[in-house]
Amino acid sequence: MEIEVNAIGGYEEVGRNMTAIRVNEDIVIIDMGLRLDRIAIHEDAEIERMHSIDLIKMGAIPNDAVLSRSKGLVKAIVCTHGHLDHIGAVPKLAHRYEAPIIATPFTAELIAQQISVEKKFGVENPLYTLDAGQIYQITPDVAVEFVRGTHSIPDPVFAVLHTPAGALVYANDFKLDRTPVIGKPPDFNRLKSLGKEGVLALIVESTRVKVAGKTPSEQIAKDLVRDVLLGTEELENGVLVTTFSSHIARVKSIVEAADEMDRHPLLLGRSMERYLRTAESVGLVELPDNVGVYGNRRSVDKILKRVMQDGKEKYLPIITGHQGEPEAMLTRVARELTPYQVTSGDKIVFSAEVIPSPLNVANRYSLETKLKMHGARLYTNVHVSGHAAREDHWEFIKMLKPDHIFPTHGDLSMTSSYVELAEEAGYSLRDNIHLLRNGQNMAIER
Amino acid sequence: MEIEVNAIGGYEEVGRNMTAIRVNEDIVIIDMGLRLDRIAIHEDAEIERMHSIDLIKMGAIPNDAVLSRSKGLVKAIVCTHGHLDHIGAVPKLAHRYEAPIIATPFTAELIAQQISVEKKFGVENPLYTLDAGQIYQITPDVAVEFVRGTHSIPDPVFAVLHTPAGALVYANDFKLDRTPVIGKPPDFNRLKSLGKEGVLALIVESTRVKVAGKTPSEQIAKDLVRDVLLGTEELENGVLVTTFSSHIARVKSIVEAADEMDRHPLLLGRSMERYLRTAESVGLVELPDNVGVYGNRRSVDKILKRVMQDGKEKYLPIITGHQGEPEAMLTRVARELTPYQVTSGDKIVFSAEVIPSPLNVANRYSLETKLKMHGARLYTNVHVSGHAAREDHWEFIKMLKPDHIFPTHGDLSMTSSYVELAEEAGYSLRDNIHLLRNGQNMAIER
Amino acid sequence: MEIEVNAIGGYEEVGRNMTAIRVNEDIVIIDMGLRLDRIAIHEDAEIERMHSIDLIKMGAIPNDAVLSRSKGLVKAIVCTHGHLDHIGAVPKLAHRYEAPIIATPFTAELIAQQISVEKKFGVENPLYTLDAGQIYQITPDVAVEFVRGTHSIPDPVFAVLHTPAGALVYANDFKLDRTPVIGKPPDFNRLKSLGKEGVLALIVESTRVKVAGKTPSEQIAKDLVRDVLLGTEELENGVLVTTFSSHIARVKSIVEAADEMDRHPLLLGRSMERYLRTAESVGLVELPDNVGVYGNRRSVDKILKRVMQDGKEKYLPIITGHQGEPEAMLTRVARELTPYQVTSGDKIVFSAEVIPSPLNVANRYSLETKLKMHGARLYTNVHVSGHAAREDHWEFIKMLKPDHIFPTHGDLSMTSSYVELAEEAGYSLRDNIHLLRNGQNMAIER
Amino acid sequence: MEIEVNAIGGYEEVGRNMTAIRVNEDIVIIDMGLRLDRIAIHEDAEIERMHSIDLIKMGAIPNDAVLSRSKGLVKAIVCTHGHLDHIGAVPKLAHRYEAPIIATPFTAELIAQQISVEKKFGVENPLYTLDAGQIYQITPDVAVEFVRGTHSIPDPVFAVLHTPAGALVYANDFKLDRTPVIGKPPDFNRLKSLGKEGVLALIVESTRVKVAGKTPSEQIAKDLVRDVLLGTEELENGVLVTTFSSHIARVKSIVEAADEMDRHPLLLGRSMERYLRTAESVGLVELPDNVGVYGNRRSVDKILKRVMQDGKEKYLPIITGHQGEPEAMLTRVARELTPYQVTSGDKIVFSAEVIPSPLNVANRYSLETKLKMHGARLYTNVHVSGHAAREDHWEFIKMLKPDHIFPTHGDLSMTSSYVELAEEAGYSLRDNIHLLRNGQNMAIER
Repeated sequence: MEIEVNAIGGYEEVGRNMTAIRVNEDIVIIDMGLRLDRIAIHEDAEIERMHSIDLIKMGAIPNDAVLSRSKGLVKAIVCTHGHLDHIGAVPKLAHRYEAPIIATPFTAELIAQQISVEKKFGVENPLYTLDAGQIYQITPDVAVEFVRGTHSIPDPVFAVLHTPAGALVYANDFKLDRTPVIGKPPDFNRLKSLGKEGVLALIVESTRVKVAGKTPSEQIAKDLVRDVLLGTEELENGVLVTTFSSHIARVKSIVEAADEMDRHPLLLGRSMERYLRTAESVGLVELPDNVGVYGNRRSVDKILKRVMQDGKEKYLPIITGHQGEPEAMLTRVARELTPYQVTSGDKIVFSAEVIPSPLNVANRYSLETKLKMHGARLYTNVHVSGHAAREDHWEFIKMLKPDHIFPTHGDLSMTSSYVELAEEAGYSLRDNIHLLRNGQNMAIER
Repeated sequence: MEIEVNAIGGYEEVGRNMTAIRVNEDIVIIDMGLRLDRIAIHEDAEIERMHSIDLIKMGAIPNDAVLSRSKGLVKAIVCTHGHLDHIGAVPKLAHRYEAPIIATPFTAELIAQQISVEKKFGVENPLYTLDAGQIYQITPDVAVEFVRGTHSIPDPVFAVLHTPAGALVYANDFKLDRTPVIGKPPDFNRLKSLGKEGVLALIVESTRVKVAGKTPSEQIAKDLVRDVLLGTEELENGVLVTTFSSHIARVKSIVEAADEMDRHPLLLGRSMERYLRTAESVGLVELPDNVGVYGNRRSVDKILKRVMQDGKEKYLPIITGHQGEPEAMLTRVARELTPYQVTSGDKIVFSAEVIPSPLNVANRYSLETKLKMHGARLYTNVHVSGHAAREDHWEFIKMLKPDHIFPTHGDLSMTSSYVELAEEAGYSLRDNIHLLRNGQNMAIER
Repeated sequence: MEIEVNAIGGYEEVGRNMTAIRVNEDIVIIDMGLRLDRIAIHEDAEIERMHSIDLIKMGAIPNDAVLSRSKGLVKAIVCTHGHLDHIGAVPKLAHRYEAPIIATPFTAELIAQQISVEKKFGVENPLYTLDAGQIYQITPDVAVEFVRGTHSIPDPVFAVLHTPAGALVYANDFKLDRTPVIGKPPDFNRLKSLGKEGVLALIVESTRVKVAGKTPSEQIAKDLVRDVLLGTEELENGVLVTTFSSHIARVKSIVEAADEMDRHPLLLGRSMERYLRTAESVGLVELPDNVGVYGNRRSVDKILKRVMQDGKEKYLPIITGHQGEPEAMLTRVARELTPYQVTSGDKIVFSAEVIPSPLNVANRYSLETKLKMHGARLYTNVHVSGHAAREDHWEFIKMLKPDHIFPTHGDLSMTSSYVELAEEAGYSLRDNIHLLRNGQNMAIER
Repeated sequence: MEIEVNAIGGYEEVGRNMTAIRVNEDIVIIDMGLRLDRIAIHEDAEIERMHSIDLIKMGAIPNDAVLSRSKGLVKAIVCTHGHLDHIGAVPKLAHRYEAPIIATPFTAELIAQQISVEKKFGVENPLYTLDAGQIYQITPDVAVEFVRGTHSIPDPVFAVLHTPAGALVYANDFKLDRTPVIGKPPDFNRLKSLGKEGVLALIVESTRVKVAGKTPSEQIAKDLVRDVLLGTEELENGVLVTTFSSHIARVKSIVEAADEMDRHPLLLGRSMERYLRTAESVGLVELPDNVGVYGNRRSVDKILKRVMQDGKEKYLPIITGHQGEPEAMLTRVARELTPYQVTSGDKIVFSAEVIPSPLNVANRYSLETKLKMHGARLYTNVHVSGHAAREDHWEFIKMLKPDHIFPTHGDLSMTSSYVELAEEAGYSLRDNIHLLRNGQNMAIER
């Protein structure tokens, strides 16, 4: 029995995740992600129309050429949650494999949307949905089990590959959140039972392993949002909140705060509309009747006109643009391209951190400078992360007790920080904790 | 009518706060603080035995010599809360003035304790207690009103001096906390009515004015503490929590979490015992019966011996030493000078930030290194600040609408950051926002 | 005799310097600068065609409206060196005043060029040149003396206004360089004699006052450039150097290093051509015959084609683009828009620091990422600053012993750091060191 | 033929370097260093009296127990330069092996001194000197060749082990300095010829591989020192310079600058005397007659008394204490424990960087605070490093073209940054660039 871990993408960077597990001649691909910051440094890249080869050359999608040298055949493509760094390369790469795509319902719906806007390639792989808690038998030797996780998007899972040589757990990305606002906590019982049964290998994210302590629960983010929005004596000002469109739990918390503030929540912007409508369609969230959802520019402008007429203090617009993206709602507001006028004392609440690429930092700086010139008051980083911190990883290792660990999703400074953590837990580099680089693979044995 | 603001200490540093307001010939001193880091850089300073003159030369206490050049007479010494940077110089300076000391009950009790341990000077000024909400007529022209505030110690107040020329508000230190865990929120109604009546001058701290947004409520700290202590699958390990002894609200939150964890809370260390017993004595907190409180070294060691016998998983010791102070409990534990043995997987929770002087950073580094060598897992910064952040200050200015503002409690980088904030709110440097330096004074008029 | 210092621009920022001194009814304006980063955050600003009013609203040029409220008349506009933050607003503001512009020859030539490309306004003020060491009598009461300074552009001066009430020294920007590569050291004798005669006021830059110690001489930059270019065993690779076009001394050092390397120096890019040709025309530098100078895109591409044919190891192109400016030469090279191909092991030497605005940081990041993808090796910050550091300022104060000091050219964190330095030298805030904000003025007396 | 690289110390930290190469049954140890910061966090460690076992437990010296599991015999101990992190554990570990110690003359002399002050162990290994350029045949199969390097201490070498399977190059620590002030540049010809002959493995330091570009030559440090000391108009003030006692080249540059300043250089402090006398004794430096050298406290105090009588402007004391070490000269001066009085305007020149451990930072902070309270002006970081930066490493790899690379001397963040550099040069992690951890070993083959 040969088990081989193939590091394809995400082993040298944050973004473009892709791992392939070969079990004898059966290959299962897990995740096919996109690295957006590699697109952003180019002036005129229009991703929907670009060819895989160019995107690989730019470092924007995983270089799956290494798989062609492998002696197996791809039998399934598994996607573990709906962020673009996990599903964004599906439209560019999946058609190369005769294999179904397997994902939870919300993730599957987002994948379908990605495929539908792709303009270069036609992706016709069948798309299967699998709920957390369920198992799908891919080949006689290999089954995939979805174990419920928590993250900053709904319906994320740990993917567990069951093989004759043992189970491989893929945990990228996740946090350990006992009070996740939407959905249930991670399936700790199943994780512990896997630990008892024996885990052959753990493939695990390392984006925030350098951060001391424990990532606070999403409930804390909800508390922080309420503390900012309700903990004030100023009730007559305009308030705008911006957050991740795909972070349905956060949007829900903000909508509920709007209710306590006695303001109408408005969800504005194309991606805000798309993610919320998708979440509704799969039953993840039920928006109250008083929530207005407006995606296209015309309808957004129309409702903002009414906001200005009725009074800004009656509404709580929840909008896109927390990274200062040039085309997003908040940037358009700052540039006075919408009817909404920011005036002295209005509050802009960023329920998001800055993803610290220099381009984001520059965009945010331009955005914040313009907002301040209008007299806006800024509340930044009203947020908690969706990624496990150092002590979460410690607990996770203790729970699963894997024979081998492969840190992924990070540059070498992150994955090697994971190595140091694992060493504290008794592992040893090159013996049972392994640093793979994109394009490398390693065979493991029980 | 002459009103003069005298900047004595705290106008060039964090620590040793002291302001004097002269109203014609009546002077009211507000706060008499100590700057501990100026002691710490010396090898062998024993503060209880030192003379004021040496402490002034070291920059450790305010240089009140400037007052001797003033044409008024000190009629009262007002202390606004019980931290050492506000009351720590009382034993060294108060005896120079024939004037009563006025403070809230908890603060007054702490001042009395300071005076009692002083070995160089005998301080015999009368000590009056005044509750938040009350007014004390100091002279025919001057009365002091205590307005309820919130901070990281119980019973803090804004001091409002009522003079024939108008009210002066002293707000150093404070946060605007609507859910403060112990006590009530700031008296927003009174603050707003002061704003309507007209405030001649605001003297205001600037320690955290550079920090964007709003300081979260102490309730968030409670949520964070619970998230760390309860949000874990590891129930059998030793857990130690360290926090500020004077932060009674925080200690209360930790004690309550211990209850949910089904562990006995233990309050250990001299200052932990002193502050908690003082808080109990003035009715601020009621500790449950199962809380053990042990101050002196022998009794601490005795109970820790029992902890080791019974099992660490049955107790939650709450101890001193969050800054790595060489003599504090946690440092002694790390150095194996107590019966408590830290072993692999034990959790050490720092419910405090590092006060970022280089000496503290070095002490914490030594402490953390030693703890890690024992296998401890560290949870740092499980904490929220007790000081107003930038947008709290914005709201505060909008509420009080003072004619003049004097930022204090900070170095020039902090006070000048406050100036920039005030400029955003329509004030103008040198016209109505004033940068005083230690030893300077300024007359103001309506 | 009334002497009034008017802070117009540069008192709250780096950029758009402008100060006006009123002596009874005579006003002398010193510098009229532009703040480029305020243009850069806008998507589509074309500065040559913009109106002053819009540029003032954006914060890009000084708001000289405050002068219209003054009771004097502008009699001269003095520019102290040729950087855009000192002369860039001349085309937008000078025509409002019936007054000559006075500058050293190199600066005057650069001002003339600025005026000639302006498309919105016609500026017809007479342009007088005055050499360092000379005095010009502006009105019976006011004369301006130019005292030789050193900075990162040739021919900079301290402007000294002689008035019946004493001399005012304007020192913005400068360094104290005893070995400046081009030109002579500052005129220390004259500075010291001014100090002895008595200086009423010093208006002084504060951009680098936070930096400890002394700014190294430009000779050190020359040493560093040589150390990088000559101190290598790799002689066959392509080498590109980028630096400030206006930094003639630096360019000269690089050209000389090229000679030692036995490579042909090429000066490439429009601004590189413009500044070098201007420097040659006023006799500041004499380029050796083997230096190629190519400004427009076509001729640049032609010579780069030849470089590729002859061999990159035979040339040392010195090019624009050290900040990653999108249109500059180095960015075009990185984007493969020129015939020059960067390949593995080629060296790119940045003889410049990153001016740390977020937009520059982002541009540099994009640039460096692209260069690295071609295999380039980067040598960054091979540079020393042109601005006085903390101890240079200390010496400068000690030399001039001014009665009053007005720090300028910096945000409040910089000007207030200057205040702290001056306090160390015995000055006192609000007594004889003054923090003015844009739009404020202050009368001074001997 | 078995070649095995044993990582013993320095593979997880800066400090306590030790590597052992096994060639069949012959083992050669290279370096036996001490990690001082692991001593410093303890309150009362007196290293001369401590046992190896305790020092190993503290992480202060390498854990050589791993060698006892090896099947070879130690035949030689090679030390490559005289810093304590390379020779400081010799007195604690060398006696365990029946093998000579081999070092260059200056290094050997320093080792002899270390051994002589040791109080716990008696070290009687023979001590052989070998000059750079020479080869010593250790066993029939193994010879060691010393190749001249450059570093921040005189007489450093690359150690080259010649084995039947090829040469192994040990390069820890070094810089590539073409103008090293004392001694000659690295032996580039020999390095290149080694590269041509074929290098089986390179063991290489990584302390500064994260630093972009090239480490400037020591000549630049000399230029900087002269620029600070001579580039001033203030000639009457006291000036103190502090630097690394073992950095003979730097001391020489400062002594020469003293001559140009027309001041008497004084070398003060025990380690200053020891290193300089040692350097003289092996002919590395010849101090001019006018240099005073005083080591013990009494003679230092005596000369400083004379300095105060004659006038501080006549002397240039060069003293110990750049890291703020509590017992060093500069700290004693700051605490007024010597006759030398620092007064307003005196210059303190730190010709050293702060080695950034938190304890050093705290010590330096205390020191600088005290000096400033006396009115001193501080010139910090008048210095260049003795370690190769990123592009030096690039050139070094290109020169040697080793088959295998083992980065050492750094924590994982440093060694893994070296991995990234090597990947840019075409190497591949786990194939030919290897991350070993303390206690691990790896066999290599041609």
